[in-house]
Amino acid sequence: MSTDTVTAAILVIGDEILSGRTKDRNIGTIADYLTAIGIALREVRIVPDEAEAIVAAVNALRASHTYLFTTGGIGPTHDDITADCVAAAFGVGIDVDPRARAMLLERHKPEDLNAARLRMARIPEGADLIPNPISKAPGFHIGNVFVMAGVPAIMQAMLDAVGPSLATGARMLSETIEAGGLPEGAYAGGLAEIAKDFPGVSIGSYPSMTEAGFRNRIVVRSTDAAALAEAQGAVQALVAGLTG
Amino acid sequence: MSTDTVTAAILVIGDEILSGRTKDRNIGTIADYLTAIGIALREVRIVPDEAEAIVAAVNALRASHTYLFTTGGIGPTHDDITADCVAAAFGVGIDVDPRARAMLLERHKPEDLNAARLRMARIPEGADLIPNPISKAPGFHIGNVFVMAGVPAIMQAMLDAVGPSLATGARMLSETIEAGGLPEGAYAGGLAEIAKDFPGVSIGSYPSMTEAGFRNRIVVRSTDAAALAEAQGAVQALVAGLTG
Repeated sequence: MSTDTVTAAILVIGDEILSGRTKDRNIGTIADYLTAIGIALREVRIVPDEAEAIVAAVNALRASHTYLFTTGGIGPTHDDITADCVAAAFGVGIDVDPRARAMLLERHKPEDLNAARLRMARIPEGADLIPNPISKAPGFHIGNVFVMAGVPAIMQAMLDAVGPSLATGARMLSETIEAGGLPEGAYAGGLAEIAKDFPGVSIGSYPSMTEAGFRNRIVVRSTDAAALAEAQGAVQALVAGLTG
Repeated sequence: MSTDTVTAAILVIGDEILSGRTKDRNIGTIADYLTAIGIALREVRIVPDEAEAIVAAVNALRASHTYLFTTGGIGPTHDDITADCVAAAFGVGIDVDPRARAMLLERHKPEDLNAARLRMARIPEGADLIPNPISKAPGFHIGNVFVMAGVPAIMQAMLDAVGPSLATGARMLSETIEAGGLPEGAYAGGLAEIAKDFPGVSIGSYPSMTEAGFRNRIVVRSTDAAALAEAQGAVQALVAGLTG
């Protein structure tokens, strides 16, 4: 582990994910994004649309990670309570933000900006806005917390908008060694030895099932390119020795 | 909310999910399963393959929910540390379990049951086994915690095996009202009124993006069939009034 590790957590807010009705796609997208820019995603939580659960999770996760990214709950309906919960978590006020209101007016006529739509302009005091090129209602950024939409395309646009402003650490590099049909149990002992020899390299073994049976993949990960290459070589030699 | 609510949490254990390399599919499967049998999934956490994080999450989640389901980290390789962590969380010992060893012998010849494979027979003291019809290495059940494999097909088989033994509460019923292209901002005010009128019904509004623009869906959920039908009728009338 490099000492300049930048870490992150994701908080997914939504009854619809917990009920199974909607299958989350944002976690994987954010995980890929953060890994690519050198931020280590360390924890994910999914909580229901309930103030107490959201506030507790926001405060737990923002305290223990460099960044917290939330998705969901920033629309115009009564079940969208994320902004209020984040304000409560930070102990700041929340009101209609003139900048956010102006953004909504790019999409809605003034006479259509009813109370429900104005809810989307309610932003915690001291927050910066995250633009939403698709439907205009912004996300926001307060302290180390980034509040984004749940709709995947909008979340993605917001992530692209905030990405360049994030501090990043050493990029985690990874290499995959295909073990094919070689059973995990056949190489696990050797792999544990290699893992001990390379304390700065994280080594994982990931089975998946195919029509042809198990297919195993070994992934070596490190911020240190030289150590990574050495560990990769050792794993390749292990697999070749067992396959040959 | 019914008073006989049975709740659950999921703990997904795995660096490969947090790195984005593997996209989780178990959360959605378990969420669907629990909803269908009348167990309310209330929280999900994803943590890395690190003992401290796993033990803390197991203890937090088993204390606050009727059941905790974990996935991942029960294979033969050095990064599979879930069983040890669950034993530590419960403060019990862990050793090779003769029943689990017998299950492994259904798949492996005695001479192939090396130290790595025997890791899969290490089961916390006092746990019951969860059979694995696919690759034999069992999951286990201790207290209110169910420890399952990460490979989706095996997880599914284990869930099917434990399902009938679970206490279930009143089944959450749900109805979906298609709002089509009607904007959330147009019905949000009326929907909030309906939500207030039906405190026993949870009402959510879920936008999704399609080629044709936003498509919105309103979902009403309750364990009370009569209240659900009434709320559904009110939402249908609201949508029809705004569409017509």
